[in-house]
Amino acid sequence: MNVFIIHAHPEPKSLNGALKDLAVESLRDLGHQVQVSDLYAMGWKAVADGGDFHDRENPERMFYGRESKHAFLGGSQREDVVAEQEKLLWADAVILQFPLWWFSMPAILKGWFERVYAYGFAYGVGQHGGERWGDRYGEGTLLGRRALVSMTVGGREAHYTDRGVNGALHDVLWPIQHGTLFYPGMAVLEPFVIYQAGHLTPERWQVEAGRYRARLRGLFTEEPIPYRRQNGGHYDGQQSLKEGLGRGEAGTRIHLLQPGDPPQVPPGQP
Amino acid sequence: MNVFIIHAHPEPKSLNGALKDLAVESLRDLGHQVQVSDLYAMGWKAVADGGDFHDRENPERMFYGRESKHAFLGGSQREDVVAEQEKLLWADAVILQFPLWWFSMPAILKGWFERVYAYGFAYGVGQHGGERWGDRYGEGTLLGRRALVSMTVGGREAHYTDRGVNGALHDVLWPIQHGTLFYPGMAVLEPFVIYQAGHLTPERWQVEAGRYRARLRGLFTEEPIPYRRQNGGHYDGQQSLKEGLGRGEAGTRIHLLQPGDPPQVPPGQP
Repeated sequence: MNVFIIHAHPEPKSLNGALKDLAVESLRDLGHQVQVSDLYAMGWKAVADGGDFHDRENPERMFYGRESKHAFLGGSQREDVVAEQEKLLWADAVILQFPLWWFSMPAILKGWFERVYAYGFAYGVGQHGGERWGDRYGEGTLLGRRALVSMTVGGREAHYTDRGVNGALHDVLWPIQHGTLFYPGMAVLEPFVIYQAGHLTPERWQVEAGRYRARLRGLFTEEPIPYRRQNGGHYDGQQSLKEGLGRGEAGTRIHLLQPGDPPQVPPGQP
Repeated sequence: MNVFIIHAHPEPKSLNGALKDLAVESLRDLGHQVQVSDLYAMGWKAVADGGDFHDRENPERMFYGRESKHAFLGGSQREDVVAEQEKLLWADAVILQFPLWWFSMPAILKGWFERVYAYGFAYGVGQHGGERWGDRYGEGTLLGRRALVSMTVGGREAHYTDRGVNGALHDVLWPIQHGTLFYPGMAVLEPFVIYQAGHLTPERWQVEAGRYRARLRGLFTEEPIPYRRQNGGHYDGQQSLKEGLGRGEAGTRIHLLQPGDPPQVPPGQP
């Protein structure tokens, strides 16, 4: 299978760098093909702006989304953006490797999504109108691919538990895992996290490395996070979760399938 | 009072640009002093990397946090970073003006926080050790300041309600409002949001502009979001919310004060 690793750390000798290297080696040993986008090493253009468009639809006022659509449909996207879209399409699984900075991904990776996730590619896909809000959240261009967040965290695991002061990890990662990876159709696995990353002893590294190798072996067999699909029949015409679903839960967890829920309509069906 | 607006949109003629201009004018009319950091216009360096440090503590391997601490304490930070820190310290209120892109702030603004929020300035502040995890979440360098997220959203409000498919707005903004603004001590107001920003008629603009002016008039009098303070007595030594608190809620909402909760220890007391 094909695995695409998007790596976002400025220091090659970092723990993130070691995890990226470990993944490349482990995945190749397992017989997979691997491509890596090392965003810092590539000097990735992090900022989405007018420079992304050679051929502006509206030279007077830039609407980023509209220009993105125009460039995507017209074949005038920047080469760096096209190359990353091709890697996403080539991949059977996508791994994000990054340190959690201010409870989100580093700016360089955020800017990768802003530029690579073009209108028509990652959003604005499928029929819009009436009660149909496009192919998103479990449908879309990247359907059939798996996604894994592998990240390092400075703080302690206890602070990210359901009652921890930072918020539950599931909530902290909601904009990334649900809003960015599941959105264009990828099936998202539970994240791989190394906590207290600034205090990693060689002994603990051995343990964490073993734990990561095991996750990589399960990349194509693990059960993904059971997010409900937007067009699976569980949301109404206003995209609200239908009454009677998500019982006993609140917050983002109402969007997870529960035992006993009605079956979802398979992707690609109206 | 002093208001600092951090503005992150590439197009001056955009709705975000108009909201920024409206805020500057309205706030000055109200007698406030205003400073604006227009990140795109400034060509803000969005990417946190080794180039942020003139005088590396460890030239062999870059730990961003440690170098940030070294530069902050040693007075060798880059001038662009120092200038932004001074604006934060000058301010009585901070407004973030941005479009919601992939359920988060634009990369250029994310990178602003990564670089300006130095170790010793915005984190790593106060006593750490034992059951004390520093001055954060309602205490810290920016205590006494207010913060307001003003943003534009392409989607519909219904999709951001408690049962909406995008997740509740409170959850989507959790990493920003709680994890980034409340973290170093700011009191966070309810966000100001314009939905369906791509379809704004002149008539609706008049309504939204009036609504924003009203929010700006309340900038120093509105009740902030009642996040619990980390050191207010509601979390235990593992930074977990104490038993009996957050009843009837789940997810990020357990971190909001409820009627009948025991009073919190005031900031700055052990």
